Amino acid sequence: MMAMNGAQALVRTLVGCGVDVCFTNPGTSEMHFVAALDDVREMRGVLALFEGVATGAADGYARMAGRPAATLLHLGPGLGNGLANLHNARKGRVPVVNIVGDHATHHAKFDAHLQSDIETVARNVSGFIRTAQRPEQTGTAAAAAVAAALGPPGQVATLILPADACWLPGGVVAPALPLRPRATVASETIDEVARALRSSEPAALFLGGSALRERALVAASRVARAAGVKLLCETFPARLERGAGLPPVSRLAYLAEFATQQLAGLRHLILVDAKAPVSFFAYPGKPSDLVPEGCAVRTLAAAEDDAASALEALADHLGAPREASLQPAARPPLPTGDLTADAVAKVIGALLPEGAIVSDEANTSGLSAPLHTAGAPRHDWLCLAGGAIGQGLPVATGAALACPGRKVVSLEADGSALYTIQSLWTQAREGLDVVTVIYNNRSYAILNLELSRVGAESPGPKALSMLDLSRPDLDFVAIARGFGVPATRAATADDFAKQLARALSEPGPALIEAMV
Amino acid sequence: MMAMNGAQALVRTLVGCGVDVCFTNPGTSEMHFVAALDDVREMRGVLALFEGVATGAADGYARMAGRPAATLLHLGPGLGNGLANLHNARKGRVPVVNIVGDHATHHAKFDAHLQSDIETVARNVSGFIRTAQRPEQTGTAAAAAVAAALGPPGQVATLILPADACWLPGGVVAPALPLRPRATVASETIDEVARALRSSEPAALFLGGSALRERALVAASRVARAAGVKLLCETFPARLERGAGLPPVSRLAYLAEFATQQLAGLRHLILVDAKAPVSFFAYPGKPSDLVPEGCAVRTLAAAEDDAASALEALADHLGAPREASLQPAARPPLPTGDLTADAVAKVIGALLPEGAIVSDEANTSGLSAPLHTAGAPRHDWLCLAGGAIGQGLPVATGAALACPGRKVVSLEADGSALYTIQSLWTQAREGLDVVTVIYNNRSYAILNLELSRVGAESPGPKALSMLDLSRPDLDFVAIARGFGVPATRAATADDFAKQLARALSEPGPALIEAMV
Repeated sequence: MMAMNGAQALVRTLVGCGVDVCFTNPGTSEMHFVAALDDVREMRGVLALFEGVATGAADGYARMAGRPAATLLHLGPGLGNGLANLHNARKGRVPVVNIVGDHATHHAKFDAHLQSDIETVARNVSGFIRTAQRPEQTGTAAAAAVAAALGPPGQVATLILPADACWLPGGVVAPALPLRPRATVASETIDEVARALRSSEPAALFLGGSALRERALVAASRVARAAGVKLLCETFPARLERGAGLPPVSRLAYLAEFATQQLAGLRHLILVDAKAPVSFFAYPGKPSDLVPEGCAVRTLAAAEDDAASALEALADHLGAPREASLQPAARPPLPTGDLTADAVAKVIGALLPEGAIVSDEANTSGLSAPLHTAGAPRHDWLCLAGGAIGQGLPVATGAALACPGRKVVSLEADGSALYTIQSLWTQAREGLDVVTVIYNNRSYAILNLELSRVGAESPGPKALSMLDLSRPDLDFVAIARGFGVPATRAATADDFAKQLARALSEPGPALIEAMV
Repeated sequence: MMAMNGAQALVRTLVGCGVDVCFTNPGTSEMHFVAALDDVREMRGVLALFEGVATGAADGYARMAGRPAATLLHLGPGLGNGLANLHNARKGRVPVVNIVGDHATHHAKFDAHLQSDIETVARNVSGFIRTAQRPEQTGTAAAAAVAAALGPPGQVATLILPADACWLPGGVVAPALPLRPRATVASETIDEVARALRSSEPAALFLGGSALRERALVAASRVARAAGVKLLCETFPARLERGAGLPPVSRLAYLAEFATQQLAGLRHLILVDAKAPVSFFAYPGKPSDLVPEGCAVRTLAAAEDDAASALEALADHLGAPREASLQPAARPPLPTGDLTADAVAKVIGALLPEGAIVSDEANTSGLSAPLHTAGAPRHDWLCLAGGAIGQGLPVATGAALACPGRKVVSLEADGSALYTIQSLWTQAREGLDVVTVIYNNRSYAILNLELSRVGAESPGPKALSMLDLSRPDLDFVAIARGFGVPATRAATADDFAKQLARALSEPGPALIEAMV
């Protein structure tokens, strides 16, 4: 590779910055990037059939790999199709590097069919946006994008790449920018939090983001032991380490009614890489702010801070014991009889293998899954960080790619599965160890619940039909097979246990349609 | 309905403005709109499993009904998922009224999970954006959105609707705004065009948009007869009326190499509700502007003008004969033997029923379909107006809903089908007369072509695998059945002819996977 074009310099720079997986859904304007994949051996291209799969997979990959993947998207419409899962990555502070192809610079003025204002589309989700106008700029722009994505905190960085900046010679590889370390929390802050916790008034640590990994959890548990405070965490953490041998932490409930109970009576809420809890949606006559009256909110560590060290310093300051309270190993017995959402959760708790990764987009069907898996062998739990459904299957796909040798269990509601069902094909193509469990309850069950919560009383048949996924029933076994993933259907708890055990014992993807 | 809430006033206003179909993919913030469907009997709610289906179906509906449908989308991520097909509607100047729910106004400041800047996302595709902050404003905002969508020219109008503007009482129904008529083209313009055409230098009319309906086509054909000029039209018209008994018009080729031949030697190009032709993409060393050197470009009618009347005035001015040149009836014989893309086109030409609507997203596989259907009974041909793939199945869905009693034939490339495959379920649920033909060639064939056209020579195996849809092969019969649509697979021309004849003779949706 003597004289590089812009695309080659870009791909080589990405690899040099530690970004060596790219989830692609390319078009004509990205063909030189695609061609460059063969020039840069280290970059792995993973094809997705839909952009929302690519962006969600990049999110799942980064959550587990701890470094970003790239996406390759086709102009404004391609970015649009990927936007919902980029929203989730943004809210979860997960690093993603988007490469969005554009028309050649001299072509823009002709307003061809696919011309649109890409930067405007990117703005909603991106903390960093840059257009590399010339081949000389693709390397430096890529290095800047990776650095911006890494943060801390992690964010979505979008690099817009006109086709001629790719195809022209003159590309220059840029070195990786230095990693920005997390900021050290001031000792005054730790003193102040310690004072609040020593007050013996009811208090809780509210953990999120980087505070949900083992080191921070152990420190948080020591603080809890020393000060007798509750440990709570975000409703939808991007990644929570949990299971036997790790300190347990309760997730704040999705439903404000339950979250309010969890927070009731608190006088101090200490935020650790988390935002103060608010209601997911607004409801008539109900407060959006879930912090109880008279409860003081303090930030121990913000998103860019070193939360684990701050928690350790706090624990030491409080003279906490060295040992955390750890979750004992415990599995529920295998259920028999009817297959309910709760029985599915029990089977998963009984069979979840050591080191599993759970991608949880089960919504209402998954309510008891955290309970029944609490004492399962150590695992990671990945949630719907931004609330935009359709990320579960892509996140599972990316997580599996990041962690070969670990089993991914993708818990998926039927309604949510259908936004990015094309993920199954990428799982099959890449031979990924993902077992997808579809909770088929033939409805947007959560909306049936929400309809009355928002005060829309006695809904009529037309309204109810908008929440109903029957007429016709979806056949997820057929759909999965169509995308190349072997699939079975379970109608009883015994069926489901047998099918899950088999799926977990075999390599490659599988899908189980659980008729709940 | 004594005291209306904002949602009820909105839905009633839409109906009063002639918008009585809404393609929905709602969430919690849209529950009051959903509940209002039962209060306003005239509004039909059509559920989609994915927002790109809803927006594409609204586009297809409007193309055939001549009036907009509404969409109902869930906050910024829902709009994002619908963006690619809204891009297509924008480029095709098709009216669409988006209703995008948002958090209650008092909830926005809490930056909850689904909070994002919806207006920014909407800007890329919308000619009109308004947020109705209070229930008193939903009616007037809806009437303004419908008027803006109608144009002329048609455009996407996006109405953002905070949840409290829906649920609070105080809604006021607004009357429909007066329709804005198309502008009359000045007689000086017609004189000037007539002078150019009388020069006896080589000339062509380049037709698009509203000039591709019968009345305008007849007048254009009369002009062509009088002045000896060519009739050409846009590469991807939103709606072209064609077939036996209508004046034929040649579509400009997608590939610039062929388009250049069609335009070679012209000295006058007259634009009639069309933009001057440009290359779809830029290619190294090739011009983007396809108008040949020395060819003068004049606009007879712009997008907001009354193109049909302008063409009639021009024909009269030129003393044209009353009769147009009409396409004679002719069908190809049914082919036998191997199933090729050309054989598929011949079978369609042989069997296409009177009054059919063809949604054409066959891409490379569909190149000969216009040729073999030219003399089929009169039909409508709907193309990928904005070039963002994934609109064919949704457009077919919306068109079928707009035209009960007419058969829709949806010609769909395998790669493109997979962006919005969820359309099949809506077709099944609504019992729509859509026959989908999937050209399964196991690749993004167009990208194999484009890879060399952009100058990426001798692509390596990694690049080629990004264009390849095998490993694993997709099984569209299984996928279709999974979504509730009966499906068959055709491996020979005879199979395909038999299956298409049966599918066209039966009510409701069907899918044929053509192994080409």
